[in-house]
Amino acid sequence: MKIEEYLEQKRLEVDQFLEHYIPHTQTTPAILYEAIRYSLFAGGKRIRPILTIASAEALGQPPKALLPVACAFECIHTYSLIHDDLPAMDNDDFRRGKLTNHKVFGEAIAILAGDGLQTLAFELCSRPDLVHDVEPQRQIQVIYELALGAGNQGMVGGQVLDMQAEHQVADLATLQQIHHHKTGRLIRAAVRAGALLSGATPTQLDHLTRFAEHIGLAFQIADDVLNVTGTQEELGKAPKTDAQRGKQTYPALYGVERAQALAQECINRALDCLHPFDHKADPLREIARYIVNRRH
Amino acid sequence: MKIEEYLEQKRLEVDQFLEHYIPHTQTTPAILYEAIRYSLFAGGKRIRPILTIASAEALGQPPKALLPVACAFECIHTYSLIHDDLPAMDNDDFRRGKLTNHKVFGEAIAILAGDGLQTLAFELCSRPDLVHDVEPQRQIQVIYELALGAGNQGMVGGQVLDMQAEHQVADLATLQQIHHHKTGRLIRAAVRAGALLSGATPTQLDHLTRFAEHIGLAFQIADDVLNVTGTQEELGKAPKTDAQRGKQTYPALYGVERAQALAQECINRALDCLHPFDHKADPLREIARYIVNRRH
Repeated sequence: MKIEEYLEQKRLEVDQFLEHYIPHTQTTPAILYEAIRYSLFAGGKRIRPILTIASAEALGQPPKALLPVACAFECIHTYSLIHDDLPAMDNDDFRRGKLTNHKVFGEAIAILAGDGLQTLAFELCSRPDLVHDVEPQRQIQVIYELALGAGNQGMVGGQVLDMQAEHQVADLATLQQIHHHKTGRLIRAAVRAGALLSGATPTQLDHLTRFAEHIGLAFQIADDVLNVTGTQEELGKAPKTDAQRGKQTYPALYGVERAQALAQECINRALDCLHPFDHKADPLREIARYIVNRRH
Repeated sequence: MKIEEYLEQKRLEVDQFLEHYIPHTQTTPAILYEAIRYSLFAGGKRIRPILTIASAEALGQPPKALLPVACAFECIHTYSLIHDDLPAMDNDDFRRGKLTNHKVFGEAIAILAGDGLQTLAFELCSRPDLVHDVEPQRQIQVIYELALGAGNQGMVGGQVLDMQAEHQVADLATLQQIHHHKTGRLIRAAVRAGALLSGATPTQLDHLTRFAEHIGLAFQIADDVLNVTGTQEELGKAPKTDAQRGKQTYPALYGVERAQALAQECINRALDCLHPFDHKADPLREIARYIVNRRH
């Protein structure tokens, strides 16, 4: 199967699950669910949940609990986008070619929709009717991974580091620390969660963890590069915003070409980590390549 | 033991736990931990975690996992206060006699501190070194309770309902729905979590759940009344803000005296639910009485 087909198929599975389990706007309070669904179905690539799925599939037969856990990572990712776009943060008007959440629903609802989406992530991972065919101990471990990836030593912490570094002279150590926290930890957690749900041995978990760390860094470098080279149409938002904001990025530090080469190096290292795995890890391999080749 | 002594002792236990497990400001990013600790140690009464503890104690010997779970409820409560105070929400400058989080750290950090505190709640409930002496299935159930109490059908949803009802004509059904979601669900979850951790039977859980629902409503009515009758000194913030904002409250609907009588009725019903329990439930009984008699 070609990677585009794989991604499309898994994206549909994720969308169908979210469509079914994230309440419709007739649920009270309607405006909250409308705001949550507005951002959740804004055309995201579902990279994080697909990584969870592909990671589980690399090890064999994943449990039914896989999809809710995978979708929990999308909830966390979406909530972070809603809050990042707020006037007090990046103050963005557009995201994926659509008005940002607070532009449509107002700041208060946007804050609450983000808050509710975070809670929803943990609800999906602990719902008794959804996550019942996995060893409870593993399930708790997955919830812990999700919390570590999303929290103060993960995504939230990375967002703070990113803000603090704006308009400062870029250095590699700071840049790595920002990327590691802001993007890397959640991607790492998404991959580990899938592995844990499929009963990974400690060695398998270790290989997949290092794979995830390399693609996480590549993902952020590629994002930085796209912000410089992408068009408004490709990005669904204004390009070159990082430079305007004085954000620390790899292209700012090394130039576009060297940054692209660095991302490719990360992918090569990631692929090396998958050596012990058979063809069932092919989707993971292709996702890794896709991360540096995508145009949006 | 007098209730004041009990509350003080349990408050100290909660504070000591939080002090030990919520990282100090030397952890990176320092400003994030500083902001989190600023609000977490702003002098809260720790009612929610104490309810979790008292509920567990009512049933016998609680596990060590009790304190982290109890403190998770305080993390959720504190994050909600930080976000509620934001300019886009209630736009409050003072809370418990101190400047609100965004007044000290700025809006962006206040949003992120709230986000990180919510994640921390789920981290505390799933940390393998903290929550190891409880049946994993029960632990997952507790995490699910926490998510339900905090989320879109709980606290977050209630906040949305509350905002929507501002400057509208108050009616009892709306008011009950707001209170039930905004305050009631998290208090209910706090009590249920303690009961679940102590191995409650379905019948015991049912009694304690109804107890929690009654005190939850009483708690919010008492809060509404205090907002009218309390002084700046007692409240640690400006009094009578609800009326200025056109908030729907029990005193607005019934007047202060009738509202106080209603709160007392709720407490009487709550105490009835504790009939099947022995003296180990005395702290729960005293907390119920304290809720309507407190002056802040």
